[in-house]
Parts: sequence; C-alpha cells; structure tokens
Amino acid sequence: MSTLVGNCLVAQSGGPTSVINASACGVIQEAFKTGQINEVYGALNGIAGVLNEQLFSFNQESPEEIELLKVTPASALGSCRYKLKSLDQSEGDFRRVIEVFKAHNIRYFFYIGGNDSMDTAHKVSQYAQKVGYELKSIGVPKTIDNDLPVTDHTPGFGSAAKFIATSVKEVGLDARVYNYNTVTICEIMGRNAGWLTASAALAKKYEDEAPHFVYLPEIPFSFEQFDKDVRYALENYNYAVVAVSEGIKNEEGKYISELIAENHMKDAFGHVQLGGVSSILEAYVSQNICKKVRTVNYSTTQRSAAHWASLTDNEEAYLCGQMAVRYAIEGHTGKMVGLFRENTPEYKCTTQLIDLDDVANQEKSIPREWISEAGNNLNQEAIDYITPLIMGEVKIKMENGIPRYCRLQKKLIKQKLETWNVK
Amino acid sequence: MSTLVGNCLVAQSGGPTSVINASACGVIQEAFKTGQINEVYGALNGIAGVLNEQLFSFNQESPEEIELLKVTPASALGSCRYKLKSLDQSEGDFRRVIEVFKAHNIRYFFYIGGNDSMDTAHKVSQYAQKVGYELKSIGVPKTIDNDLPVTDHTPGFGSAAKFIATSVKEVGLDARVYNYNTVTICEIMGRNAGWLTASAALAKKYEDEAPHFVYLPEIPFSFEQFDKDVRYALENYNYAVVAVSEGIKNEEGKYISELIAENHMKDAFGHVQLGGVSSILEAYVSQNICKKVRTVNYSTTQRSAAHWASLTDNEEAYLCGQMAVRYAIEGHTGKMVGLFRENTPEYKCTTQLIDLDDVANQEKSIPREWISEAGNNLNQEAIDYITPLIMGEVKIKMENGIPRYCRLQKKLIKQKLETWNVK
Repeated sequence: MSTLVGNCLVAQSGGPTSVINASACGVIQEAFKTGQINEVYGALNGIAGVLNEQLFSFNQESPEEIELLKVTPASALGSCRYKLKSLDQSEGDFRRVIEVFKAHNIRYFFYIGGNDSMDTAHKVSQYAQKVGYELKSIGVPKTIDNDLPVTDHTPGFGSAAKFIATSVKEVGLDARVYNYNTVTICEIMGRNAGWLTASAALAKKYEDEAPHFVYLPEIPFSFEQFDKDVRYALENYNYAVVAVSEGIKNEEGKYISELIAENHMKDAFGHVQLGGVSSILEAYVSQNICKKVRTVNYSTTQRSAAHWASLTDNEEAYLCGQMAVRYAIEGHTGKMVGLFRENTPEYKCTTQLIDLDDVANQEKSIPREWISEAGNNLNQEAIDYITPLIMGEVKIKMENGIPRYCRLQKKLIKQKLETWNVK
Repeated sequence: MSTLVGNCLVAQSGGPTSVINASACGVIQEAFKTGQINEVYGALNGIAGVLNEQLFSFNQESPEEIELLKVTPASALGSCRYKLKSLDQSEGDFRRVIEVFKAHNIRYFFYIGGNDSMDTAHKVSQYAQKVGYELKSIGVPKTIDNDLPVTDHTPGFGSAAKFIATSVKEVGLDARVYNYNTVTICEIMGRNAGWLTASAALAKKYEDEAPHFVYLPEIPFSFEQFDKDVRYALENYNYAVVAVSEGIKNEEGKYISELIAENHMKDAFGHVQLGGVSSILEAYVSQNICKKVRTVNYSTTQRSAAHWASLTDNEEAYLCGQMAVRYAIEGHTGKMVGLFRENTPEYKCTTQLIDLDDVANQEKSIPREWISEAGNNLNQEAIDYITPLIMGEVKIKMENGIPRYCRLQKKLIKQKLETWNVK
C-alpha cells in the first residue's frame, strides 16, 4: 500500500464513448473514499488541459451532478487529439506536466483514453520516476473500436454494439415492409478493426432477418462478392440489408472510400469529396442492381447513445475507473486497467493490471475463424463473444421526455505557472 | 349501435413509424372483444394485399405475439405505396375490393396510414354504400411528419420526436468535447412540414447547447443566414450543431438538395447524385467556414427507434386503433380517428371522429409565429406543443441484449377469387 497523500487528476482523451464518463465517475467517487486524496481535479481537454494548466475541482461540483456522470455520454471533461512529443525527442512536454503536477501537489494521475493515452500515462509515470517526483499514474481504457490487445474487451464497445445491434434490427424491420426490392446499407465506425460492425450481426435471429451480410476491414472488399450477396438477398428475402465498416479496404489495403473518391467523386462545389463508403456502395447498387437503395450512416449517434447503453458495459466502465484508484493506492503505476473474462459458464468479468508495453502499438482484429469462409458474415464464436457485453439497460434520469445528462460547472482554478496554449 | 356481424380486416400503408403496430394491436385486441367480429384478418402490404386477396388471420397468431405488436416498429403487416384509382376514373379497383370483402364476409375495414390511406378508407366506404354492401370503414392516422390537419397531432410523431430530441442532445455532447471548432449537421425527415425537425429544439436547455439553429421547410433557406449562424455559434460556443429538414427549399420553392445536385453533383460513377441536403451543407461548411464538419443523417433510424418510443405516443396509437373498432361498432363509417387535446393545464388527450373531407389534400405546417423571427429557431409555443407528446418510455421485452420484437406467421388463407397481382 502506498502512503502517498496528495491530490489527484483525472482526464479524458480521444473519441468519446457512451460510458467514458462512467469511468471518470468511478475514479472520482472512489478517490473521495480513499482518505489519501484531498482535491480531485479534472483537466480540461485531456493532456492539453494539463499542459495549459486548465484544471477544475470535483470537490466544487455537486455530488448529484457527479452521480449523473455515470450515465452521460461523450467526454464531460473535454477531450483532445494532442499527442505528447516522445521522451527521446523532447522532454519539454513531460517537464511541463510534472511542473503542473508539482504546482498543485498532484500525486495520482488517471488518464482515460485509447492507445495513445495509455502510452501517455505510461511515459508520464516513467518520467516522474526519472526526475524523482513521486506519482502514481494509471491508464483507464475506452474505445468503441474494441481494438486494444490483452484486455478481453474495452469499455465503450458494449454500449455502441448494443445500439448498433438494436438499430440494425429496427432498420431491418423498416426496410422489409414493401412488396418490392429495397436495399439498405448501414455504415458503422471502425477504421481498422471490425468489432463494432460485427456487432450488427447480433440483430439477426432468423435467416431472413437483417443484416444479410457484414463487411469488415479485416477482409479485403470485393465489389463482385458484394454484388452477388445483394442479389442473393433480394432474390431470397425481397430486401437486402448490409452492414459495412467505414474502413473496408481493397486487396491492396487501400480504403474503398478514398480510392473511389480520388478517381471520381466531386462534391457540390467541384471539390473531391471524401464521402463515406456507404454513399459509394449506394451509388453502385442504384446503378447496377436496384433503384430503391438507402443509406444509414450512424456517425456519432453510435458512440453517444447513452440512452441505450449496455448496463454490463456501463458497470465495467465504472469499475475500471474505481479499480484504477485502488491499484494506484496499492502503489502501482505506469499500468493500464484491463478486463479479464473468467472461464465460467456464466459471463463473469474482473479487472487486471496490464503492462503498457504489451498494449502499445498493437491492434486486436477479429480472428479469421470467427468470420464466415466467404468473408461476408460472422460465425457463432463472434456472436458468443459479443452478446454478454450488450446485456442489460441503464436507468436514465429523465427531464421533459429526454435524458437529463450531467452538466459540470468546470470552474477553472487559479493558475500558478506561466501560460501555455496547446490545442 | 351497429348489429352488423362478420369479419374484419386491418391493413397498413405508407412509411412506417415506431407505433403503427401499436395501432394495429389496438384494432386486433379490441376486435376480439366485440362479440360481433369473428375472424380478424390482416392484409399483406396494405390495399395491394386486399386487391391481391393476400389475407392472413390474427386468430391464427399467438396472443403473446400480438401483444408484442404493441412495441414493434415498422409495418408488421407490410406496407405499400399503391394508390387506388379514383372512383370517377375507374371503378375497377373498388369493385375488386368489395368482391374480396364479400368473398371473406369482411364487414369492418380499418386502414392505418397517412393522407392517401385516409382517402382510401373514405372512398371504400362510399363505394360500399353505393353498391349496397354493408361495411364500416374507419381510418387510423399515422405519420412521423405530423402534417395531418384537424387532429391535434398524429400517432408516430411523438416517438420520432423523442428519439430525435434525445439523439441530438447526445450528438451535441459528443460534438463539443474538443478544444477546437467543429460543425455538426443533423438531417431530419419531413419533406414539406418541419414538425420533426423542430423537435430537435427540445434537446436544448441552455444557450450553449445543441441544436444552435434549426432550418425548416416552412422558411426559405438562405446560405447567407446559414453562414452567419454557424459562425455565430463557433464564435460563442466553440462548436456548432444545426438541425436541418431534408425538405428545405430556396425562395423559389425549389428543394436545396435537388437544385445543387442538378448543377454540380456527380457521384462515384459519374452520374448526378441526389445526395441529402446535409452533404451539401457539409461541403459548404468545409470549404467556407471550418474543416472539421460532420453529418448525421438519421435516415430510417428516426422512424423505427421503438426501443426509445414515447409512452404517450405509444398509448395514443393503441387507443386510436381501439377506438376505430368502437366507432365502427357504434355504426360510424368513412371517418378518421383523430386526437383531441383537452384545454386543461395537465396534458390530456382524447379521440374524436373526423370527417375525411376535412383531411384530404391538406397539410398542417408549423405556424409562422412559433418560429423565431430570423426563421432559424423555434419559439416556446412549439416546445410547449411538442413536449407532452414525447413523455414517458415504453417497456421493451428483451432477448440477448436487444429488443424481442413481434414476428408474425402471416400464413395466407385460401384464395377464393381469380388472381390479381398489384405491387
């Protein structure tokens, strides 16, 4: 056990999820309980807010509002895409981080984010050790892409998957009401890993139900196969619904969207349009197969639909935040909290500490054997892996018919150092 | 009271909603209770299924599955876009409808749909009277567009509005996480009436929240105003979220989408692309205001999101179906069930019978005084009108983490007449 007493800092980074605030809430509420942490600071916009010394205190926020964080989507603390310069390249960023920590006696640092943020938590820990500043730094993972290695899955994925599976089911029912052929193309996030697109397959129970085919970035996309698939669905079911990852690539590994856009596509003002892949498939279908074709591009709805978050995912996200604090108090630093699926018949998940060297610069793809032979659908293994992660619904506080989400004051504390202005 | 005993037929038409099946469920469950109705038939794909004599019996479906209809989106009976030829033009279609009704002793006809379907219910009633076939024919309204006159509002609107308001709130939280300017354009259904787009305004509680501006088909769209609005939001809030109807038009009444598409837009394969209006606004913003711009086109998700249906809307949709049967049994025919908002401090709504002559060929637009002076936002009157309609959440039966929606057998009964094949 660490006897280190001081303040703590929590920050968020990268693309938002429906439960990234649940992790923040876990950190904050647990930090208040420890007895070793006085002020619980938040940084505005991730590590950029640390560098800019833009901090606010959760001790000044109301407990009711903090409790609401548990079911509020997007990054309530603010996010950033700023990457710390590497330690070899320049110590400047790291020196500044430690200066800010020293100025506010921050001894515990919790960084909620994706791969890059885990790397930051790791390097800040190493640099603190190097300069002799006592600090416990723990990373809390989040990503709807579910592409982090070692951890069984990633907070944020289950909720996005539940929304996608539900909406594809609903869109599928909508798509089949007419007595003539229709095609619907659902575009889902995930540039390099197809986990979220794969979750669309959970919508289907019977052969005739949507989605009829699923196209993943893991499998080179072929227009011939796609053409054959859509015609098959139309012939057999009178309608076709396909789920497609934004990141599908051709045999040469080039994104389908970019390839076509470069060659042909001009927008309303005569410039090349980097349109979504679904608009390209829509154009293909409309000119080659069937005039009645529609696109559903889930855009940011899929990662912000907290009204339909998975209770399992939500609780695990909270747990990861909570355990980050406990691990830090136990004396750990420079690690990431991971999720470990127990080998039990009923789904059971616990946390574990993961070495950040094992996580850095690696991506977890869907195993080939979980994908159908033709590469256009998911096997039962994938369904069995994802299903437990989307179970249960969260309880949402309502106001005037819509969710009452958290609204923080985020009143900045007085700065003590010279001004930085990182974006 | 009518003493007419026989079978009844229920059918659905036009674009689906989240609660069109709740109305069907109301018809079916009430019909079973009357004592005057033996078989409750459904027609496959609306009036097309009547003409094609494609009928199935709800007496053969399980009561549990029928109960699930109450919370199942899309048209479970199937829909059509087929319009009966006018009575002056040709009696053929009408003669056939009555032949099919006679062949199966159908004495009660309930047609759930939009404007055209109400017209059909009306004309079938008139023709039956003309040829001396005793029939009670009642229309049950549905449309997410909320554009039917006389009735205070239309089943289907409240649920779509609740989903849009919720999702725009969530997308708005997602859009504001970064410390640099971003623009998000949400495209919402409604070609000629802006009710559903207007409901996005319910997402906003505080000045800085989304949506910052709302563009309706009722107000001529101006790129100058749009440009000014987006810049204002970026300057004051650091992000801009706007809601835009698919049906916005210029001063000459021409759809913005079509106008631009005709002039400039080519798709991936060199053909003119009838892209959504949001992609045009996205291109405009990206080239003139801000590179970080995103589009959310709700497509069919907004009319099928039964997982987040409004309980008020759901119950009213059921009530309309139920009352259609009661009105028919009372002896009424050729009318539509409408919703009447009582003049009470607490929202209270009852049904009324509406003359179909008052409904035909009219559209209800948002009153100009409910829209802000600049035409880019909603006034409190609009908020006050919509809010009661989105109150409450339905209870969804779940299976493996997603909704378990109704799946009918729809086993066709033996045909008695010669074959028709209308699409």
